[in-house]
Amino acid sequence: MAGSTYGTIFRISTWGESHGPSLGVVVDGCPAGLPLSAGDIQAYLDRRKPGRSKISTQRQESDEIEILSGIFEDKTTGAPIAMMIRNTSHRSTDYSEIASYYRPGHADYTFDAKYGFRDYRGGGRSSGRETACRVAGGAVAAKLLQEFGIRLCAYTLSIGPVKIDRDRFDADAILTTPTGMPDRNASSFAEAYLAECMQNRDSAGGVIECVIDGVPAGLGDPVFEKLDANLSKALMSIGAVKAVEIGDGIEVSNRSGSLNNDSFCQKEGQTAKRTNHAGGILGGISDGSRIILRAHVKPTPSIFSPQQTVNKRGEEIEIAIKGRHDPVIVPRAVVVVETMAALTIADALLLNASAKLDHLKMIYDR
Amino acid sequence: MAGSTYGTIFRISTWGESHGPSLGVVVDGCPAGLPLSAGDIQAYLDRRKPGRSKISTQRQESDEIEILSGIFEDKTTGAPIAMMIRNTSHRSTDYSEIASYYRPGHADYTFDAKYGFRDYRGGGRSSGRETACRVAGGAVAAKLLQEFGIRLCAYTLSIGPVKIDRDRFDADAILTTPTGMPDRNASSFAEAYLAECMQNRDSAGGVIECVIDGVPAGLGDPVFEKLDANLSKALMSIGAVKAVEIGDGIEVSNRSGSLNNDSFCQKEGQTAKRTNHAGGILGGISDGSRIILRAHVKPTPSIFSPQQTVNKRGEEIEIAIKGRHDPVIVPRAVVVVETMAALTIADALLLNASAKLDHLKMIYDR
Amino acid sequence: MAGSTYGTIFRISTWGESHGPSLGVVVDGCPAGLPLSAGDIQAYLDRRKPGRSKISTQRQESDEIEILSGIFEDKTTGAPIAMMIRNTSHRSTDYSEIASYYRPGHADYTFDAKYGFRDYRGGGRSSGRETACRVAGGAVAAKLLQEFGIRLCAYTLSIGPVKIDRDRFDADAILTTPTGMPDRNASSFAEAYLAECMQNRDSAGGVIECVIDGVPAGLGDPVFEKLDANLSKALMSIGAVKAVEIGDGIEVSNRSGSLNNDSFCQKEGQTAKRTNHAGGILGGISDGSRIILRAHVKPTPSIFSPQQTVNKRGEEIEIAIKGRHDPVIVPRAVVVVETMAALTIADALLLNASAKLDHLKMIYDR
Amino acid sequence: MAGSTYGTIFRISTWGESHGPSLGVVVDGCPAGLPLSAGDIQAYLDRRKPGRSKISTQRQESDEIEILSGIFEDKTTGAPIAMMIRNTSHRSTDYSEIASYYRPGHADYTFDAKYGFRDYRGGGRSSGRETACRVAGGAVAAKLLQEFGIRLCAYTLSIGPVKIDRDRFDADAILTTPTGMPDRNASSFAEAYLAECMQNRDSAGGVIECVIDGVPAGLGDPVFEKLDANLSKALMSIGAVKAVEIGDGIEVSNRSGSLNNDSFCQKEGQTAKRTNHAGGILGGISDGSRIILRAHVKPTPSIFSPQQTVNKRGEEIEIAIKGRHDPVIVPRAVVVVETMAALTIADALLLNASAKLDHLKMIYDR
Repeated sequence: MAGSTYGTIFRISTWGESHGPSLGVVVDGCPAGLPLSAGDIQAYLDRRKPGRSKISTQRQESDEIEILSGIFEDKTTGAPIAMMIRNTSHRSTDYSEIASYYRPGHADYTFDAKYGFRDYRGGGRSSGRETACRVAGGAVAAKLLQEFGIRLCAYTLSIGPVKIDRDRFDADAILTTPTGMPDRNASSFAEAYLAECMQNRDSAGGVIECVIDGVPAGLGDPVFEKLDANLSKALMSIGAVKAVEIGDGIEVSNRSGSLNNDSFCQKEGQTAKRTNHAGGILGGISDGSRIILRAHVKPTPSIFSPQQTVNKRGEEIEIAIKGRHDPVIVPRAVVVVETMAALTIADALLLNASAKLDHLKMIYDR
Repeated sequence: MAGSTYGTIFRISTWGESHGPSLGVVVDGCPAGLPLSAGDIQAYLDRRKPGRSKISTQRQESDEIEILSGIFEDKTTGAPIAMMIRNTSHRSTDYSEIASYYRPGHADYTFDAKYGFRDYRGGGRSSGRETACRVAGGAVAAKLLQEFGIRLCAYTLSIGPVKIDRDRFDADAILTTPTGMPDRNASSFAEAYLAECMQNRDSAGGVIECVIDGVPAGLGDPVFEKLDANLSKALMSIGAVKAVEIGDGIEVSNRSGSLNNDSFCQKEGQTAKRTNHAGGILGGISDGSRIILRAHVKPTPSIFSPQQTVNKRGEEIEIAIKGRHDPVIVPRAVVVVETMAALTIADALLLNASAKLDHLKMIYDR
Repeated sequence: MAGSTYGTIFRISTWGESHGPSLGVVVDGCPAGLPLSAGDIQAYLDRRKPGRSKISTQRQESDEIEILSGIFEDKTTGAPIAMMIRNTSHRSTDYSEIASYYRPGHADYTFDAKYGFRDYRGGGRSSGRETACRVAGGAVAAKLLQEFGIRLCAYTLSIGPVKIDRDRFDADAILTTPTGMPDRNASSFAEAYLAECMQNRDSAGGVIECVIDGVPAGLGDPVFEKLDANLSKALMSIGAVKAVEIGDGIEVSNRSGSLNNDSFCQKEGQTAKRTNHAGGILGGISDGSRIILRAHVKPTPSIFSPQQTVNKRGEEIEIAIKGRHDPVIVPRAVVVVETMAALTIADALLLNASAKLDHLKMIYDR
Repeated sequence: MAGSTYGTIFRISTWGESHGPSLGVVVDGCPAGLPLSAGDIQAYLDRRKPGRSKISTQRQESDEIEILSGIFEDKTTGAPIAMMIRNTSHRSTDYSEIASYYRPGHADYTFDAKYGFRDYRGGGRSSGRETACRVAGGAVAAKLLQEFGIRLCAYTLSIGPVKIDRDRFDADAILTTPTGMPDRNASSFAEAYLAECMQNRDSAGGVIECVIDGVPAGLGDPVFEKLDANLSKALMSIGAVKAVEIGDGIEVSNRSGSLNNDSFCQKEGQTAKRTNHAGGILGGISDGSRIILRAHVKPTPSIFSPQQTVNKRGEEIEIAIKGRHDPVIVPRAVVVVETMAALTIADALLLNASAKLDHLKMIYDR
């Protein structure tokens, strides 16, 4: 199926494998008139780069974005915005071994089951490298949302057992700590924990949180296209994510209604809520307060300890994975979560433009 | 937007409000030749019925399904299957009060923000009654999946603080306990807990689990249309769900890779996994083992204790909700979770039919 | 596949067979706040009714519309608008004969080829009765378009060899002549021609034209979603249509560029065109002038003369069709063409709301 | 809106402007296992090349295709196939003049109306160059269809007043005559006619026919997704097409039912039709006989004679278009028609795979 497209009006289509000549994304449906430059995109891609520290792979992926269409006189024209990243770093490694067996925790087996064979070089289409294209597309969405005062901010909440202390929240730390944690103290502990993981030839998981401010009330649709349903799909479509929470998330299942309901009140002449257990969405529609999401990320499946598996001939074997692999996916996935959320909110913003007759009359001057 | 449609090939469109003359669903894209009767649907709808016990509303909704199209000589014809449920129970209550203010935890405010006004009678389109149509549509999906040996089973895992004991798992109890728990002992505790909630004019949340057996390896698509991404959307689109987990879900974020990876092995001449932390999905594609999902459900927002809110004139007021409301949504939502999962798997099954050239050649006899 | 849905934002899903209990349509994505009543819909359905004259079947289909959802206080709420028409007229005819063979010019054979069997009673899903649901859905679209000053008008241009004289164009005649011709003189000739057809146990085809005034410049999208491409699909999806023209249509293939180009000029301070060979669409986008469409309709395939065909056992046989059949489809299809065009324009109007950053800023007050 | 995507399962997304660095297409949903090389695509692109004769622009567009993803070991993997064509020929012409006014017959005015401004260099997104990407994507579809014995053949039927003689039909001539006519005699007359057009600083239109053999009965869906409806959209989405016919097309509106109905008969043990007025489609579903389509193409709007128009300041002016323009679009559009038809049939082939329970059971071995 055509599974490489995301969004209804604001829509991206991604393509490319880990070891092909390049990867790319086509953004279609972006409104005309948005100022946009390669620099806007590059800033987001740079947040995904590896090699920033000991806890990430030492690959040097430059990941330079080229914009190939859709921009004229520094603004979007309404035509599709195609962007491309050339694959420069991959060495002509010998992948013949990996071709023959199924790595635990990876998509090797399921790709073979689905398609009959697979491009095994570096994970092919199921490589984490695919997310670079989401980030590039999502950077356009984020730029669009800025025009409406909508700001997204994702960060690492925990790595393994190490959690941030919300009282020490420091937004500046997100982009400067190697963990993406907004708490330098916790980040140091997490680094120490990861060093230990690496020594044990093991890996770690973690939690990413994303908050979105400035979303007007009214985005999202009742029933199947609820805003939280789409945000949930957006996050769960990121490779290693195994759980998604909105607002207080899993906490709500063991809480009483009287504590969980957010009372409405008036603030500065506006209807607002006293608390925000709901995470900014009621009945699938944004309520004007902060939207809060969390994604639980599994530990990197590529570990250097020996593992049991089977090969394509159906023989049970023991393998040891080689190469360059991050001991934790979380820090580099932070910007992926942020941009997938941006794509979802941007699409909802555009779809909502036709919800009310009054709005349409404004546009068509009736 | 057109947000009342779910699915790409196997697709349902639902309609209807809590207090209109009827509600309904159109199932389009169901393959021709599937034996189907109203009884197949009714069995699922009956599981959603209220009034089965003290812990659910005493409303008498008969919820009788009528099939209006798409069946000929007891089989599906490939044409859309329209089904309708007449609203018989609603009394001509005075809703003028509810019309004027925003109930905490409900979609009243967000509907007004989005559409400018709302059908406030009994929640209108955002009423839980909307899920009856999902269940009817999903029952068709479940019937289709049976033909391929795919079986779904959802049940209550916890209500408030009361969890089932997996060692006491009793599938028969699911349909006979008022809680939907597969553990009669836990169910009794949960009932006692709910009685207390009601006495406190309060409500409770809980967790629903759904397991799916017999899914062939290969369903779902890489990248955006991952099977887990779509299942996540499916569950999160159910009114009160605030978190979704696949496989070990939130546990994976604090676990090492060596423990989380599922080793492959050979079982009865087939590639299989020694464990199933992944919950049956790798890289967004089913791997042939059991699929495991969990939905965290918030406590019923309609509680009888007094609450703070605002009215449409922007005045802060205190309200006390009246009427008939379940103290917990979970037991009646179990079948909703099961059928939303069925719809998602059915669509993936149909979409996967064109993934491989070999499969297509089989169909077209080439 | 899910082929019973039309439109992206303004979307209808139809269901029902000729001889089931009822037929219906769900309109999703209609903006909230549009005044709408059953009478608005019924007026369009009445134009499709048979039995208005000798040249149409004497069936008495009352085709009364019931609105089941989506309206509150006489306005659309943004929720799906479900509508139903009960089948009252069909007699329990013996269809066993028709079940066994393939009527020439009908979909009997292709339905069997596709689905393995078919609901043969009265044509089942491929019956012309299916268009009643398009008309009901399109009536909502037409009501919406009125709010923007967009007016559609379809009429019969020719039946068999009889064409209207454009110099005698009389809009009032469209709804009062049995042919739907805006020329009473031509209509009389056409009636005489049809009487002859009936005497010969034969049938006739014809051409339907639809003009749309008041469409603002800018609707439709470049490349695949051109406004004319979608209008073409809309018309060609009507059962018996075999050709579609936009503007001067087939004439353009034998004309020079200097004659075919429409010069731009200024009229009342607005950019306009001196001629309208293009039919109101340039590069797939409406240019602000009148949109002009034509659909060529084949003669009714149900004729009373004997015909050669085969039965399901593969035997060549001669058949004679019985029952009640219009000698020409055109007059009753006029309103179908008009409403399919309305659905297409309405969807384009909504989709265009997010084409420009400036428009979105207007809506979101930025 | 996202209007640059075509198809539901077999889906292409195109991007690029006439004067950007490159143009491209992403093919998603192609089944895995199809042998495919750049040569397969280039053969189709070469048919679209200009410069083959005096009657086409002397631009030298090499239009070399690069495949960037989705192929492994010379076969499709199921992942998106991205392809790119670099723009090499465009000179840094001065477009400042064209920027200021609206060319008659072009999309200049409507783009400005829709988006507020436009990339005016060489037509930008509305340039005929955009069709190169359709051809590249459609070449993949055509390769897929070959595996099922489905063969498409498009050719020029007429240019201006010059029509081919069907009795002289010579398939070899299609690729060797500069007109794309399958009749060398007619082609010579057409060339003479075009030479005259050029001398008159004028242009010509024409008709393209496409026949498709080997399509199994059963493709296409009843109601809105009729195969002919989608083919009609496919053809009408090509820039200059103003009318589309299926089978006997416009002829049917003035023909009796007894002559227009195609009788069924038995041929070689198969149900077949004695005639094929319907053009291979009944009730929107392929009937197993040849599918026949015709597209009416308007004369090239870029003519060298002086024309009246207005500029962006609203002043009426006279212009004379310069540059390199084909006097007729038809010969180069032949392969565009063929590949758009291929895309439509390929998508229908894949969608039909899930129409029958029996087919699905075959795939899933039940």
